[in-house]
Amino acid sequence: MNTYQIALIPGDGIGIDVIDAAMVVMNAAAGRHRFALETQRFPWSCDHYLKTGAMMPEDGIETLRPFDAIFLGAVGWPATVPDAVSLHGLLLPIRKAFNQYANIRPHRLLAGVEGPLKAEGFDILCIRENTEGEYSGAGGRVHQGRDNEVAVETSIFTREGVERILRFGFEQARARRRHLTSVTKSNAQKYSMVFWDEITRELAADYPDVTVSHMHIDAMAAKMVMNPQDLDVVVASNLFGDILTDLGAAIQGGLGFAASANICPDRSAPSMFEPVHGSAPDIAGKNIANPIAAIWSGAQMLDHLGETGAAADVLSAIEGATRQGIGTRPGRNSTVEITAAVVAALGG
Amino acid sequence: MNTYQIALIPGDGIGIDVIDAAMVVMNAAAGRHRFALETQRFPWSCDHYLKTGAMMPEDGIETLRPFDAIFLGAVGWPATVPDAVSLHGLLLPIRKAFNQYANIRPHRLLAGVEGPLKAEGFDILCIRENTEGEYSGAGGRVHQGRDNEVAVETSIFTREGVERILRFGFEQARARRRHLTSVTKSNAQKYSMVFWDEITRELAADYPDVTVSHMHIDAMAAKMVMNPQDLDVVVASNLFGDILTDLGAAIQGGLGFAASANICPDRSAPSMFEPVHGSAPDIAGKNIANPIAAIWSGAQMLDHLGETGAAADVLSAIEGATRQGIGTRPGRNSTVEITAAVVAALGG
Ligand SMILES: CC(C)[C@H](C(=O)O)[C@@H](O)C(=O)O
Ligand SMILES: CC(C)[C@H](C(=O)O)[C@@H](O)C(=O)O
Repeated sequence: MNTYQIALIPGDGIGIDVIDAAMVVMNAAAGRHRFALETQRFPWSCDHYLKTGAMMPEDGIETLRPFDAIFLGAVGWPATVPDAVSLHGLLLPIRKAFNQYANIRPHRLLAGVEGPLKAEGFDILCIRENTEGEYSGAGGRVHQGRDNEVAVETSIFTREGVERILRFGFEQARARRRHLTSVTKSNAQKYSMVFWDEITRELAADYPDVTVSHMHIDAMAAKMVMNPQDLDVVVASNLFGDILTDLGAAIQGGLGFAASANICPDRSAPSMFEPVHGSAPDIAGKNIANPIAAIWSGAQMLDHLGETGAAADVLSAIEGATRQGIGTRPGRNSTVEITAAVVAALGG
Repeated sequence: MNTYQIALIPGDGIGIDVIDAAMVVMNAAAGRHRFALETQRFPWSCDHYLKTGAMMPEDGIETLRPFDAIFLGAVGWPATVPDAVSLHGLLLPIRKAFNQYANIRPHRLLAGVEGPLKAEGFDILCIRENTEGEYSGAGGRVHQGRDNEVAVETSIFTREGVERILRFGFEQARARRRHLTSVTKSNAQKYSMVFWDEITRELAADYPDVTVSHMHIDAMAAKMVMNPQDLDVVVASNLFGDILTDLGAAIQGGLGFAASANICPDRSAPSMFEPVHGSAPDIAGKNIANPIAAIWSGAQMLDHLGETGAAADVLSAIEGATRQGIGTRPGRNSTVEITAAVVAALGG
C-alpha cells in the first residue's frame, strides 16, 4: 500500500475549518483506493507569529522539504498581523523556496452552482507564474513620511522563469483543447511584458499544434466576463494570474469553489495545494465555511501524487453533492454537512 | 457666445469613426446650448509614425497646450507599429505632460443595454491614477536573447502622486454616495502598495463623512462581478485602474459603452477625453463601430468645459437612443444610425 507524507498547514481562520474538512474526504478516498495519507500538522500562522515572532521557524522550509505534499488552508489575520508580514513570512517563501513555479487554477461551473454571469459553458485552466515577476519583493522607500517620499517596487522577470511557465502552459494546452492565451500588458510595460511576449512567440514555434492568442490583462479581464467560453488555457504572470484567478473564482460562483495547486514540476521539492480563498476572519470557526475549494485542491494533490483514480472520484463526489444543491449557496449548509455529502457521494 | 478650442486626435482605426460621429453630436448640443466648438484636427497616429518616424511631432505637446480640451479616438495599429511604441509615443506622454492625473471612468448600465451579469443596479465611478505607478516606464533588460536574460520594470509612486489622486477620489465620493474603495495589493507588494494604504489611512481623517474600504485588486475584480452594486467610488493605481475599468466596461455591456476623461484638475493644462476602447482594426472604417463611448466621453468634455446643461442633455440623449434599443448590440445599427438617433433624441 502506498503511503504519502502530507504536511498540513491549516494556517489562519477558515483555513483550519476547510483543511480539517478536506482531510476527512481525502482519507475516505484513500480508504477506497487503498493508499494511506500520513499527516503532520504545523501550527504556522498569525497566532504562531504573535507567540514566537515568526510565521514559521527558521528551519521551516527544511522541515517541509521531505514531505510528498503540503496541504495549506489560508494565511492572514490582518487585525493583528499585517498581511505584508504574514504572507511574506509563510505562503510566498514556500512557493519560491520549493520552486513551485506553476500555480494551476481551474475555473468551471460545478453542476448545480449558479454563477453571476449569464454565460455558463466555460472551462478555463489558469496557469499562473508563482515565483517571480511582480511578487519579487524588490523595492524600497525614501524620505519616509515626508512630502517628497517615493516608493518603488520592481518586477523581475528571468528568461528561465518566463520560459518554464510558458512551456508548462503549452503542455497543458496540448492535453486540453490546444489553445493558449498569454496575458501581458506590453502596450504599457515595455520592458517586462514585451520580454514575455517575445518569449511566447519564440516558444510557439515548438508547439505548432497549439493556437496562441496574446491578450492584454485589461482586455482579458473583460473577456473572462463577456466570453469566457472562448478560453482554454490561460498563462499569466504572478500578479496578472492572481487577478484573473480571483475573477475566475467569481465567475465560477465564488471563492468557495476555487481550487489551486502550487506545482514544482520537476518534483525536486514538494508541491503545495491550497484553496484560493483567504482566512475570512468574519466566519472563522463557525462551521459555515465552504470546504469545496479545499476539497477540490485536495483532489489536485491526489492527482499530483499519482492517485489519479482517487482524484477523479473526489471531483465526481464534489459534483455529486453540488448537483443536489449542497454547498452551492453561502449559508445553505454547514461545513460539516457539505463534507458529509461529499463523503457520501464518494460511496464511503 | 462661449467658444472652446478643441484639439481632435482621431488616431487609428475606429478612433476616426467614433470621433467624427461624436463631433456631430457635440456640435448639435453646442447649437442648442449656444456655445461653439472650434476644432483643429491632428493626424497623429500609427500612419503618421510610418510616414514621419514619430507618433507626433517633437513640439506636439506644446502645440496642444493652448487648447481647452483634447478629444482623442484611439491609438494603436499593432500590425505595423508595436503598441509599446505607439502608446509611449502619443497617448501616455500626453497624460503625463499635462498632469492629467485623474482618469475618470463611469460604469453603469445604460437604459436598454443588456450586460453579461445577472446583477443590474450598479453605478460605479472609477478614478484611476494616470501619470505614474506601474506605467512609469522605468526598467531595462540585460543579456538580451541569452539564457540568463533578465527584464525589470519598476513602479514608481510619489507621495504627491498618491495623495492627489486619493483626495480627488474622496471629493468625488463626497459628491456621490460617500463611499470610497481604495484598491491595492499590499499583501504582496510591500513597498508601493503598503505606501498607498498608509496614505489612504492618513487622508481618511480629513474626510470623516466618507466611508473607506480597502480592497486587494484580486478581491476587487471578483467583487465587480459578484456584488458591483456595493461599490460607489473606486480609486486605484494606473495599472489596477486600467484593469478594473475594462472590467467595468464589460459589466456595463462592453467597451462600446465605456467613457473616460483624463483630467488635469488644476486646469493648468488641457484635459483629454477618450473612449476606453482601442482602435479595433478588424472593424475600422466600416461604419459599424459603436460611437456611444466616444459620445459619452464628449459629454464628460462638455461638463469639464463648464457646459453642464449640454453635458446632461447629451447623456440623456444617449439613453434616449439606447432605451429604444439603438446601439445596444454589436451589429444592430451602423455608426451613422446610432449618431443620428442620439442627435434626434437631443431634439436637434
Ligand atoms: C494572499 C495573497 C498573497 C495570495 C496571492 O496574491 O498570491 C492570494 O491572493 C492567492 O491568490 O493565492
Ligand atoms: C492603450 C493602453 C496603454 C491604455 C492604458 O492601459 O492606459 C488603455 O488600455 C486605457 O485603458 O486607456
